[in-house]
Amino acid sequence: MPREPRPFRHLVNLLKHIPGVGEGTARRFALFFLSAPHSYVQDLSQALMEVKEHVGLCRDCFNISEGDLCSICADSQRDSNVICVVEDVASLMNIENTGIYRGKYHVLHGTISPIDGIGPEELKMDELLRRVERGKVNEVIIATGSSVEGETTAIYLAERLKKRKIPVTRLAHGIPLGAHIRYVDPRTLEQALRYRVKL
Amino acid sequence: MPREPRPFRHLVNLLKHIPGVGEGTARRFALFFLSAPHSYVQDLSQALMEVKEHVGLCRDCFNISEGDLCSICADSQRDSNVICVVEDVASLMNIENTGIYRGKYHVLHGTISPIDGIGPEELKMDELLRRVERGKVNEVIIATGSSVEGETTAIYLAERLKKRKIPVTRLAHGIPLGAHIRYVDPRTLEQALRYRVKL
Repeated sequence: MPREPRPFRHLVNLLKHIPGVGEGTARRFALFFLSAPHSYVQDLSQALMEVKEHVGLCRDCFNISEGDLCSICADSQRDSNVICVVEDVASLMNIENTGIYRGKYHVLHGTISPIDGIGPEELKMDELLRRVERGKVNEVIIATGSSVEGETTAIYLAERLKKRKIPVTRLAHGIPLGAHIRYVDPRTLEQALRYRVKL
Repeated sequence: MPREPRPFRHLVNLLKHIPGVGEGTARRFALFFLSAPHSYVQDLSQALMEVKEHVGLCRDCFNISEGDLCSICADSQRDSNVICVVEDVASLMNIENTGIYRGKYHVLHGTISPIDGIGPEELKMDELLRRVERGKVNEVIIATGSSVEGETTAIYLAERLKKRKIPVTRLAHGIPLGAHIRYVDPRTLEQALRYRVKL
């Protein structure tokens, strides 16, 4: 479109930085903001700054946190002897949503990915090892994804933890609930067969 | 997730007001803003306020505009004798993207929808009629959607324009490009048959 209003174009360009948001979606969002009540847009504008100013990372597990310690690390009811290692905060939230995990977490903030120049130093890996050495940890559950990067990170981390005699587990692979066998990919099926359980 | 940082939860709740953005997407956006550079989030926060403060509606056609007149209405190269009537700014932008339309526009900002309590008075309908009476207009192209509301609006508007002896046209209905006949819905096919063109 020729000569859109400059502030509109600027907003669309900024919104396009959000992963998964292209030109069309960014425009749709910007048009919504234009027609939305002034107070709503003002609140949103302020909320964006507030989240940057008041939300940081937990000193222990690197989850997002308003204070030094996140709500999970500060919770004395949670089992400090089990640490679940995840790639990112979204994964942590997803596991929390199951409601069954009562241990603590450690957020790596990424996975090993040589192609993107991300080695173990770029992740919160040393922090995990130091944390494990500090307290008594009965189990580290590695919950990185089953992508190549997720697997590489899991293998690397398991090696380093085993050297320290820490028991390490990995989330089970297998057929996702509700899936039809005919649509499951061969690699998942292979894993499901290998780790079949006795009934 | 239990006790998310308050500013984070607040931001997620605000983002959920964007049409099509649910809890999961809002969280993903909020986590992106958390990890994004401070300067980017600051720019976005300011751009939101700027768009509200500096972008209004064109005096003539109600397109978004930085000044009194939008870039299309201010463009003397565009044909003032043809007015294309659209529901919203997104539709206008989509027609502009074709690059073939050289007339002007009129944005109704909605469609007639009795169920939502939206009558002709809630739309920029009278403004269109006044505009048409003011200047000499050779054609009004009605480009509302083919939803029930879009059709109702088109019929209502056509009646009122015809009373004023203004030539009115409507966008052609038919088979969209690239569609396979076997998947086209029966109503579209019916229209395509009725308005078939001679080769």
